[in-house]
Formats: sequence, C-alpha cells, structure tokens
Amino acid sequence: MNGNDNTEEDKFYLHPLTNYTFGTKEPLFEKDTSISARFQRMREEFESIGLRRSVEAVLLVHEHNLPHVLLLQIGASFFKLPGGEVDAQEDEVSALKRLLNDILCRSEHIPVDWQVETLLGQWWRPNFEPPQYPYIPAHVTKPKEHKQLYLVKIPEKALFSVPRNYKLVAAPLFELYDNSSGYGPIISSLPQLLSRMNFKYL
Amino acid sequence: MNGNDNTEEDKFYLHPLTNYTFGTKEPLFEKDTSISARFQRMREEFESIGLRRSVEAVLLVHEHNLPHVLLLQIGASFFKLPGGEVDAQEDEVSALKRLLNDILCRSEHIPVDWQVETLLGQWWRPNFEPPQYPYIPAHVTKPKEHKQLYLVKIPEKALFSVPRNYKLVAAPLFELYDNSSGYGPIISSLPQLLSRMNFKYL
Repeated sequence: MNGNDNTEEDKFYLHPLTNYTFGTKEPLFEKDTSISARFQRMREEFESIGLRRSVEAVLLVHEHNLPHVLLLQIGASFFKLPGGEVDAQEDEVSALKRLLNDILCRSEHIPVDWQVETLLGQWWRPNFEPPQYPYIPAHVTKPKEHKQLYLVKIPEKALFSVPRNYKLVAAPLFELYDNSSGYGPIISSLPQLLSRMNFKYL
Repeated sequence: MNGNDNTEEDKFYLHPLTNYTFGTKEPLFEKDTSISARFQRMREEFESIGLRRSVEAVLLVHEHNLPHVLLLQIGASFFKLPGGEVDAQEDEVSALKRLLNDILCRSEHIPVDWQVETLLGQWWRPNFEPPQYPYIPAHVTKPKEHKQLYLVKIPEKALFSVPRNYKLVAAPLFELYDNSSGYGPIISSLPQLLSRMNFKYL
C-alpha cells in the first residue's frame, strides 16, 4: 500500500450542485412531535424490539471544487442528514435507500439510483437521552441506538423532491468543521470522516 | 454492500496492552528546538523542496475490550502520534515504517513488523502557522503541509523501546473524544475516524 497511489477505487467523483434540480412535495412529518415523545417511543420500542438501528446518508456535491454536504434544514437553525430508522428484518443498505426515496423522491417519479458506498462512521446512544458517542462507552452493555453513516453516491444529474417543511441546503466542509454548536457533534465531524476520500470534481 | 455484513476484511484485531513490553532507549530530540524554529525551518524547506509531507501512525491496543490509542507524551500535557516527515523521493508507507522504527525500536533489535493498513484521515496546513484542517481551505492553492494518518497494525506481541524523553501512554477513546483542549483537534477526533472499524478483541 502506498499513500501516493490514487487507485481508481479510492476516487469519489463529485458533480456540481448546478447539475441537480430541487422540487418540492407534500410535507413529511417526524414520527415524534416532541423530544419527550421521541424518547418515550424509543423506550417503548426498546422494550419490545430492542436496539434501534438508524442509518443516515452523506450526499455530496461540489461548488467551485469544494465538497458540500446536502443537509435537511428544519426551521431556522436545525439541520439533519437524510435517513431514519431501519425496520426489523431490514438490512441497513435497503433501509437507507427506502428512506432516501421517501424523503427526496416523489412516488410517481422514477426513484434516484442511490449507491450506498462506504461506511463513514458509527455512533451509539447509551441511554434514552440526547448524548451519542462514536464508540460504545465503557460499562454500556445495552446501547439504545446504533447509528451508521454511509457515503452515498448520487447520479451525475437528479431531481430531488424536498418535503415542503424542509429545505435542502448544501453546506461546505469549512462551515461544518469545528461547529458542533451549529450542527451538532455528528455533522460537525463529517469533514474529518471525509478527509480520507480522494475527491475528483467533474 | 450490507451494513450488517462483517466481512473478514473489515475486522481489525486488537491485542491487550499487557501483550506489549515497554523498554527505554536514548532520548530522541525534535529537529526544532522551538515553535518559531519549527515554522522557520518549514518556511525554508518549502522554498527549496515544496510541500512538507507528514505521516502519523494510529497504533491500537485494548484494555478490557476498550480500544486505546498509543500516544507519545512529552512533559506533563503534550501528546503526539508517532510519525514525522516523509523524505523527498520516499513514499508515505516506507516513511512511516522508518519513523516508527526510529522512534519505537532499538537499532540492535529486530524491527517491529509494522503493517500500514488504512488511511484514516488527512490534514492540511494552509500557512506557516499552527492551524491545520481536514480539507484544503478555499482559495488555498499551495498548502504548506499535508499530513496523513494511517491505522497501523502491530504484531500480537512486541517490545517497544521508548526514548527516555518521552512516555508511551495508552489513551482510551473516551479520554480523547471531544477533548481538543487536552489533545488538539487531530488526536481528539480519532474516535470518530476509528468508529467505522469493526474491532475484535483477542
């Protein structure tokens, strides 16, 4: 292995933001209407079906040869990656494609050809509470949620239909880096997770 | 690709800290005796040979099935990963093995069989100044240093000979996580970079 080798395998091609079209569609509401409802449902489902498995997609475009991450914005200042919960019996990759279609496509259109590429990182939630960690903390034998972040390749061109209660924004890496207060610990460490990739700008 | 597949390829085996023996050897001094000397030499070398290439190794062990990173400690509170500068004409992987031997082996012993595995992350220094970023910042056409972090597999057992002016310490991930003030931005984001690995504890 040679750090200077840029094998084809390592390359990840990014297309310009202007290649993509953004339409709107009917609003898509979260399953939980409050933070307390969210943790209440998590607690109830943990009792009945165990560990929650979540998946999120890192979708990338470029502007002027700088990588940008596509984020869903809700309200003025909350951002999330597209994704959600994996159903029982479902594998992570199928779930992520299903969720991306639910969030960013219209059922009457041909779905986008999402190519789930690389596992970028994983986070664990030890309790029915907001903190998540990129490792299973000591003495935690039963984490409550396991979240996997995948790099997902999108086609050269695509139409995304964005639920009307969201905005889809493209955030450059420098905006996310070291900005946990603006984007939370997971999104703000995407620049580090993506740094090993060899991006090519088309 | 299936997020539940734990293919043999993805697995990374960690051995217990107690498998390793730590001896001492003569002190190993840095090339630069001060921060200002460090940036002065970087500036001079950039004029003559261009971009500085650096490599650092992430060496892992486990204690009670928790991954620990081996760090070199200098004084009371400064920590660094073993590594250093790549020579002109030298490739990154050869350089990293040479540097690990220089730092952690004795020339009269058989060198440790370092297996340079995976590129974990990269950092760029845009100016002759401390800040480094996990991307090339906008409008920076000539970064001054490019640092690559590799996950390096160590044998099941090994003897490390630590220069007397350093201590070799094993830091658990929870100690590093979100601790940029203690370990700096690079080491403190290792938990995120390592989260995609599927560790197995022997």
